[in-house]
Amino acid sequence: MEHPPQAPLGDTKVLAFDVFGTVVDWHGSILREMARLHPGVNGDAFATAWRAGYRPAMQRVMSGKLGWALIDDLHRMILDAILPRFGLAHLGEDERRHLNKVWHRLDPWPDAAEGLARLKQRFIVCTLSNGNLGLLTELAKHGGLPFDCILSAEVFKAYKPDAAAYLGVAKVFAVPPEQVMLVAAHHDDLAGARACGLQTAYIERPWEFGRAHPKDVSPKPGNTLHARDFLHLADQLGC
Amino acid sequence: MEHPPQAPLGDTKVLAFDVFGTVVDWHGSILREMARLHPGVNGDAFATAWRAGYRPAMQRVMSGKLGWALIDDLHRMILDAILPRFGLAHLGEDERRHLNKVWHRLDPWPDAAEGLARLKQRFIVCTLSNGNLGLLTELAKHGGLPFDCILSAEVFKAYKPDAAAYLGVAKVFAVPPEQVMLVAAHHDDLAGARACGLQTAYIERPWEFGRAHPKDVSPKPGNTLHARDFLHLADQLGC
Repeated sequence: MEHPPQAPLGDTKVLAFDVFGTVVDWHGSILREMARLHPGVNGDAFATAWRAGYRPAMQRVMSGKLGWALIDDLHRMILDAILPRFGLAHLGEDERRHLNKVWHRLDPWPDAAEGLARLKQRFIVCTLSNGNLGLLTELAKHGGLPFDCILSAEVFKAYKPDAAAYLGVAKVFAVPPEQVMLVAAHHDDLAGARACGLQTAYIERPWEFGRAHPKDVSPKPGNTLHARDFLHLADQLGC
Repeated sequence: MEHPPQAPLGDTKVLAFDVFGTVVDWHGSILREMARLHPGVNGDAFATAWRAGYRPAMQRVMSGKLGWALIDDLHRMILDAILPRFGLAHLGEDERRHLNKVWHRLDPWPDAAEGLARLKQRFIVCTLSNGNLGLLTELAKHGGLPFDCILSAEVFKAYKPDAAAYLGVAKVFAVPPEQVMLVAAHHDDLAGARACGLQTAYIERPWEFGRAHPKDVSPKPGNTLHARDFLHLADQLGC
């Protein structure tokens, strides 16, 4: 069992948010977009296949097999690879480019904007995502998400769970790691942050993979906080 | 006379704002802080001396004489150098650190927040400053400045007027340089941007150096737009 050293919550200065799945509903957004653009395609399977290519692609970058790449480019590489499987090999360049930008148009979970606005009163709220800066900026604008700062793997040239990404946030704000809290819906991301000395808040997003694939959101030991959503997190942090 | 090729304004996607002097009133803010903290000191001369060390310090970095440095560290280096001249050599570490952070607490010009909120309706609005990310984030939070994204020399590891900083903005948002407009109160900054193919908007800030030192704010040819302040810029851009 894990007993990480924890700073008192009162010292927390920065909340860094994972984005895909934690702030925005990538699966539901892609499902809705596919229903509009390509109603014949199984949107559930399509969204899942697209997202499933994400981690292996990042691993190829981090292992040096691919040079540094923006997530926009990785998304496009995966898209090109899966289109034939869904009967969409005929899509032209403009259609592919438009579809790839769905990742800039993902809708936030219903509590995200209000929760961030409350948390922002007391903390610096920033993103910490493997998504690139342009993508994250457009997502925040699309969803009316009042982040104080957009931080990304692109700034640190390292994808999470590389320590350089987590420690990079602390360095940007010139605070010790324990004054930063990672907020995420994924235990592996939180474990990476904890190993660097950050505090951690787990957010339940049971429908991240769609209504057909409920996710186990039961608490795990080790996280500083466990919250149903951002409003519940704000409650716990006294915002 | 200069006749740069100009894209139609309708294609502009991103407004990138210089910050010190353009968005925030560094001279007035330092003056007010000195009047509170060290009323015996000539705040006007102090603010001017502090700012005057900024460009030479950046040049030492860009020429390779100093390693890459955050503006926070350069501000501190200059502060330590000028304190004796103002009878403040006795200040201890905590006082120096607090004073150095005045650059995180600079007040915006009165039109800045409202102008940005209007411009944000139609454009991506971001910073492009030599200030570091942490400093700029705290400035924006302090002044209620609704930037969509905080960009900085720190992201591009190059200070303006290095082309890498201006072109970096276009690259982040995956647009050609002519779809980015630099907004600044300094003609040399705008000239650097123009040389990279960006559009340019000059903002009059006649009191940037204090009421005792009015600045020549007459229009120069070459800039795409010339505006009294951000509200006037929003008028001209139809926001």
